[in-house]
Amino acid sequence: MRSWENPVVTCDIREVGPRDGLQNEPPVPVADRVRLIDALAAAGVRHIEAASFVHPAAIPAMAGAEETLASITRRPGVRYTALVPNRKGAERALAAGADELEAVVSASATHNLKNLKRTPAETLQQIAGIIELAHAAGRPVDAGVATCFGCPYEGDIAPAAVAAYARRLVDLGADSLFFGDTTGMGSPRRVGLLLDALEAEGIDLGIVGLHLHDTRGTGLANAYAALERGITRFDASIGGLGGCPYAPGASGNVATEDLVHMVEDLGIPTGISLDGLIAAAHLAEEIVGRRLPGQVMRSGPRTQLVPAG
Amino acid sequence: MRSWENPVVTCDIREVGPRDGLQNEPPVPVADRVRLIDALAAAGVRHIEAASFVHPAAIPAMAGAEETLASITRRPGVRYTALVPNRKGAERALAAGADELEAVVSASATHNLKNLKRTPAETLQQIAGIIELAHAAGRPVDAGVATCFGCPYEGDIAPAAVAAYARRLVDLGADSLFFGDTTGMGSPRRVGLLLDALEAEGIDLGIVGLHLHDTRGTGLANAYAALERGITRFDASIGGLGGCPYAPGASGNVATEDLVHMVEDLGIPTGISLDGLIAAAHLAEEIVGRRLPGQVMRSGPRTQLVPAG
Repeated sequence: MRSWENPVVTCDIREVGPRDGLQNEPPVPVADRVRLIDALAAAGVRHIEAASFVHPAAIPAMAGAEETLASITRRPGVRYTALVPNRKGAERALAAGADELEAVVSASATHNLKNLKRTPAETLQQIAGIIELAHAAGRPVDAGVATCFGCPYEGDIAPAAVAAYARRLVDLGADSLFFGDTTGMGSPRRVGLLLDALEAEGIDLGIVGLHLHDTRGTGLANAYAALERGITRFDASIGGLGGCPYAPGASGNVATEDLVHMVEDLGIPTGISLDGLIAAAHLAEEIVGRRLPGQVMRSGPRTQLVPAG
Repeated sequence: MRSWENPVVTCDIREVGPRDGLQNEPPVPVADRVRLIDALAAAGVRHIEAASFVHPAAIPAMAGAEETLASITRRPGVRYTALVPNRKGAERALAAGADELEAVVSASATHNLKNLKRTPAETLQQIAGIIELAHAAGRPVDAGVATCFGCPYEGDIAPAAVAAYARRLVDLGADSLFFGDTTGMGSPRRVGLLLDALEAEGIDLGIVGLHLHDTRGTGLANAYAALERGITRFDASIGGLGGCPYAPGASGNVATEDLVHMVEDLGIPTGISLDGLIAAAHLAEEIVGRRLPGQVMRSGPRTQLVPAG
């Protein structure tokens, strides 16, 4: 069923700007990250990637993860999630009160080695430990596969290979899955091929989320192709915060306000205030001190008319 | 049939940068417009909106229409089209050798009055005269309806009202039709509703083209929704040249190179060289002296890998 034909569906839009988005920007103070997270929660976003427990020596922009989680104004009904690279990171994130952990393996061995400094097999072993710790603490793990639509080093990645990783992650106990278009090589056709492969592998599409990029202009087209297949979980980044580390000057993450604008137009409620998101997008611009690529923050919603006089 | 399931289909992508794109920019010399048109034709674009025969007092950026058409290096197989507002403009365009004329009426009476200084009924009368002249000269007319997905003054426009204009234009003898998302109020859902209304009005979707904007991020999503319905004619603007006069700083036309990149990925041949388009997009940036919003011109195609070493 298409997502908008399902009367009980809402979209679970996970905001990744404060972590994934800011990770690729020059470091900003914890206080600014907290301001952004609180503004997003105030806009009605109920799922926010708030911190990364990767060692700050590896990613200085994400230093202060504990302080970030301790400083946000917790709103009831909002899940604050954290990316963790290993057991040590998971212990820290759980102690800091992350509601959900994220762990990632790349479908490209080359990308995994360059990005995580480990083989995919070693990463899967770490993820097994993360899941064990999280479940012992009664918290879920959203496990991700990166470079699902292609790798900047290896080129195309076979959808069946991505699905095999998905199967491994489910077998390890992952509660949900997300699939990353890490460098914007996805397309509507490739979204369809990946979902086909996941179904062929016996993965329940109900636990599938997509982390889409707009690097080549198809970010929302890819989301639309997924919505047609019944997918309702998406990552997005306020204002399109983040860029693409492999293509300087190019766009990265799909902008949250643009995705919400399209999804609501399809008749799928998100519970998020578009005005609140646009305000948060302008706050994000202020924090990073540069123009962000989000479109609706610039144009306003389609319902915003101009006086004819 | 979805466009990519049709083995004989190709996409007819009309490049509108040299006219519609540059019209919203500070005026550039005829010589630069000619350079851009020639670069686009060299890239394999076979349908190019080359000039506007609107009076230069109304749109100074489009002065020199005759000179433009006389100066381009005509390539066999390329259709060079011109926008004309009335009989006088049609006479000039035909004398200057335009291969096809374009004429537009707005589905919003307010927008038609503000943009064309006439009522829609008066505009239809002009279009009747344009079609008569063009046909007498053995040349086709592509007739357009503007503000098809909403008007910045009036708000939503009923798809049935747009379809009624389409019927009038076909009855007047229009050879093909295009539907403009003049201010970027379209969405995948609204593309579907418009095509439904056109079919209900008995319009052959084979003569239908879409002129889409990316003002709110859904440009390629809208194109994808149309491709799913079998539409294969699209306007696009190199580099996304043009902007949106109603939303300063926002994007306007869908970028040609981004559209071609997605369409080719779906398996639909366009006959256009993406490298040639990217070169033309950089030329367009040089001509207007500002950064353009096209994405693939920045990121390169998805097949462009980075060395792993």
